[in-house]
Amino acid sequence: MSIQKPSLPKGTRDFGPEKMVRRNFIFDTIKTVFKKFGFMQLETPSMENLSVLTGKYGDEGDQLIFKILNSGDFLTDVRAQSASLEEPKSVLPLISEKALRYDLTVPFARFVVMNRNEITFPFKRFQIQPVWRADRPQRGRYREFYQCDADVVGTNSLLCEAEIVLMMDEVLSNLGITDFTIKVNNRKILSGIAEAVGEAGKESTICVAIDKLDKIGQEGVNKELLERGISESAVAQLPALLQINGETFQRLEKMKTALVASEIGQKGVDELSEVFEYLSNFELRNAKIELDATLARGLSYYTGTIIEVKVNNVSIGSISGGGRYDNLTGVFGMPDVPGVGFSFGVDRIYDVMEELNLFPDSVQSTTQVLLIAFDKEAEKFALKALAQLRANNIAAELYPDGVKIKKQMSYADSKKIPFVGLIGSDEVANQKIAFKNMTSGEQTSFSIEQILNQFNS
Amino acid sequence: MSIQKPSLPKGTRDFGPEKMVRRNFIFDTIKTVFKKFGFMQLETPSMENLSVLTGKYGDEGDQLIFKILNSGDFLTDVRAQSASLEEPKSVLPLISEKALRYDLTVPFARFVVMNRNEITFPFKRFQIQPVWRADRPQRGRYREFYQCDADVVGTNSLLCEAEIVLMMDEVLSNLGITDFTIKVNNRKILSGIAEAVGEAGKESTICVAIDKLDKIGQEGVNKELLERGISESAVAQLPALLQINGETFQRLEKMKTALVASEIGQKGVDELSEVFEYLSNFELRNAKIELDATLARGLSYYTGTIIEVKVNNVSIGSISGGGRYDNLTGVFGMPDVPGVGFSFGVDRIYDVMEELNLFPDSVQSTTQVLLIAFDKEAEKFALKALAQLRANNIAAELYPDGVKIKKQMSYADSKKIPFVGLIGSDEVANQKIAFKNMTSGEQTSFSIEQILNQFNS
Repeated sequence: MSIQKPSLPKGTRDFGPEKMVRRNFIFDTIKTVFKKFGFMQLETPSMENLSVLTGKYGDEGDQLIFKILNSGDFLTDVRAQSASLEEPKSVLPLISEKALRYDLTVPFARFVVMNRNEITFPFKRFQIQPVWRADRPQRGRYREFYQCDADVVGTNSLLCEAEIVLMMDEVLSNLGITDFTIKVNNRKILSGIAEAVGEAGKESTICVAIDKLDKIGQEGVNKELLERGISESAVAQLPALLQINGETFQRLEKMKTALVASEIGQKGVDELSEVFEYLSNFELRNAKIELDATLARGLSYYTGTIIEVKVNNVSIGSISGGGRYDNLTGVFGMPDVPGVGFSFGVDRIYDVMEELNLFPDSVQSTTQVLLIAFDKEAEKFALKALAQLRANNIAAELYPDGVKIKKQMSYADSKKIPFVGLIGSDEVANQKIAFKNMTSGEQTSFSIEQILNQFNS
Repeated sequence: MSIQKPSLPKGTRDFGPEKMVRRNFIFDTIKTVFKKFGFMQLETPSMENLSVLTGKYGDEGDQLIFKILNSGDFLTDVRAQSASLEEPKSVLPLISEKALRYDLTVPFARFVVMNRNEITFPFKRFQIQPVWRADRPQRGRYREFYQCDADVVGTNSLLCEAEIVLMMDEVLSNLGITDFTIKVNNRKILSGIAEAVGEAGKESTICVAIDKLDKIGQEGVNKELLERGISESAVAQLPALLQINGETFQRLEKMKTALVASEIGQKGVDELSEVFEYLSNFELRNAKIELDATLARGLSYYTGTIIEVKVNNVSIGSISGGGRYDNLTGVFGMPDVPGVGFSFGVDRIYDVMEELNLFPDSVQSTTQVLLIAFDKEAEKFALKALAQLRANNIAAELYPDGVKIKKQMSYADSKKIPFVGLIGSDEVANQKIAFKNMTSGEQTSFSIEQILNQFNS
C-alpha cells in the first residue's frame, strides 16, 4: 500500500509553537484591554444553520460560505425529489443544512436574539474565533482566519465610540506599535455631502470612487465619478467638501456650515463633534487622530461613526476598524438594537510586528530551565531540583533521555531555553548545579536555593 | 416576508460570558501547567484534507466525520462521471475533499510528518481546539467540543509518564478538585495476562468484558467472557491475576511472578515499576495513585502505559486520561515516532466543578468598578476617574446612558460588578466618589486616589 504524503488544505495554516507564542501575545494583549473596558467574552459554535447565514452577506458572500454535508445518506432527498443535477443551487438545500460561520457579527446577532430575555443591555461582548471563507487563497488572504471583535449593543451613547478609540490606542501601544493614525468619519456626513452636491443617495457610488484617491489620483477619481453618472457640477464641488482643512473642531464647524442644507449631514457633524468632545477628556498614548471625510469602509452596514487604523510607514492595509450601526438584529426579527463595534486584524498586526521587529524577547521561549543529568544518580538529584523549580512556578524540564550532552544542549538552543543546569557526579556530591546562562555563556555552580533566588530577584 | 426564528444546530452550544469566564479558568489553569512542564502550543486548521482523516478512526469513525462540500459548482464531477445517486459512498469523493477534524491526534501526526525536518525531538506539544463529530447528540455529548491534549513524541523515556501524573495532579489541585484517583496500568500487562491464561492476543476481548465489572459484576463478566469464546480455565484464572493486592511495589513483584511465563507481561511490569520509581521522587498534592490491572482504555491505540483519572464521589466518567503509543505517524509513512500523551475532558471537569461548587468567586465578574454619573457635569469627572482606574489596570466602566440610577445599579448586579462609584453634583464639588461595596452594601466617600489605594492594598 502506498502511503500518501499528507498536506494542508489550500488557504489554511498550521501555527507551530514559535508562531503560537507570538499570536498569543497579540490575543492576550487584546483580551486584557477588552476586559479592562468591561467587555465580556462570547463563543458561538463553528457551525450555524444555513438559514441563519444565507442572505446576510450578499450573493457573492453566499457563494463563499463553506457548507457542511449532511451526515448519513446525504442523497436521500435528492433521490426522493429527483432533483436536477444541472442546478447545484436547488440541490444544495437537499444535501446541506449547516455551514461554517463566515464572520462573528451574524452569530452574535443570532445569540442576542435567542437570549434577548437574559441579556442586560447595554451588552458589551468580545469574541475571538476563527471564521471560514471559500475565497481564492492568495498572499495574506486565508480560508480560515481569526476575527477579533468587540461590540456594544443596546445604546446610542457616543461614549462607546470614544472608548473604541481608547482601546485601539491602548492595544497597539501595549504591542509596541507607536506610529499609527486612527481615522474617524461618520456615514451621515457622507450622506450629507452627497445631498449637498445634489446626488442624494449616491454616497456609495461616490465613496467607491473616492476610496481610490490614493491609487488613481484626483483626476482618475473625477473620471470614474462621471462614468458612474455623477453630475459634472457635483464632481466639481466634491473636493472642496471632502478636503476641509484646519484643527479638528474648526473643521467640524466649517463642515457644519458647508452642509447647512442637509439635515442628515448636520446630524453627522454633531455626532462626530460629540465623539471628539469625549476624546478630549482622555490622553492618548500614541494614536494620532484624524477626521477623514473620505473614509468609507463598506458603507452598507454602518450608519454612524466609522473608524479605521493605519500603521504609518508600513505598506499594509488597515489593522483595525469598525463603526456604528442602527440595527444589529433586524434580520432576525428583533428591531431597535443599535450598536457600535470594531475588530483587530490579527494576521496584519502580526505581519506589522514582524516587520518592525516588535515581538519582545520574552515572547520567544516558554521553558526557563533545562536540566541535564549525566547519569542515573544525577537524575535523582535533577528530579528534586525539577520539582522545586516548578513549585516556584519556574517552567522547567529534565531532558528525558540519556543521550549525548551536545544533543541535549542543542535541544535547549532550538527551544530558546535561557538557562541550562548540568548535573554530574561532582554536582551530586556538592548538591550544586552547574548553571549555564545560554545567552552570555557564563556558567556558575549554584545550589537549588541560589537558582530560585536568581529568578525571584 | 416572514422572518425565521434563529436556532442553533443540534449538539452545538453558545458559551455566554458567565460560562466563558469559567471555561477560561479551566483552560488557563491547564495551559499554565502544560507550559511549566515545557509543552509548547500548536494549532492546526479546522479543516483537513479528507484523505488525511479517512481510515484513521475505523468505519464508524469515518461516518462521523463532518464533510465539507466543495465550493462552486460542486456537482461538476458527479455529472461528468454520471455517478449513481444510489451510492453516497462513491458520490462523496466527487463533491467533498475536505472535512472537519475529528480529534487532535491525527492533525498532530500530520504536522509532525510535514515538519519532521524542523522539529527538535523530543517534541512536547499541547493543543486546545474544538473537534467535530456527527454523533447523535445526547446529554453530555456534543457535536462540537474542545479537546485539550498534550503529547511528548520522539522518546521512550518513562519519565514522561511520571510527569503526566504530576501534571494531572497539579491541574486538578489548582482547580480545587482534591478527591481524585489516578489509575495506572500498562497495555503489555494486559497482553501478558491474556498470554498467561492461554488466550494470547485476546486481550481486547478480555478487556471489553472486564471494563463492565462495575456495571454487571464478576458473574456478568464471566458470562460475557465465555460467550466471547474465552476458555473456562482462562475465565477461572483471570480474577486472581487482575486482583493482586498489597502495596504497589509488592503488587508489582507479585505480578511479575504471576506473569513469569510471558515476556511481554514482564516488560509491562518493568515499565510500570519504573513509572512508580520516578513518581516516588515527587510529592503529589492530592492525587491517590492506583495500579489498576483492569484498566483498558480503548486498547487498539496504546502500546504501553495507560492512565485515567476519576473524581471520587461524583458520578461522572473519567475526566482525564492517556497513554503511550509506539507509532504516531506510521499511517503517514514516517516510522519510529513513539510517544505518550494525555488529555483533559473540559466539559466533564466543568460539570464536576459546578457540582462541587468549586469555581472561585473571583471567576464570576470581569469589571471591578461601574461608575454612574448623574448628569453631564458629573460625567466629566467620571471620565477622569475612569481613565485613572484603567491606567492602574482596574477593569472599569462608565454606564454610557443617562438612564435611571436603578437601571444602572441592576446592570452592575447582573454583571456581578463588585463596586459602584456614584457621582452627583456633591461629588463633583468635593472631587469625591460615593463608592459602594455591592456585597456588603457599605458606601464611603472616597477620592480617586483613595479608591486606587483600596485596590492596591
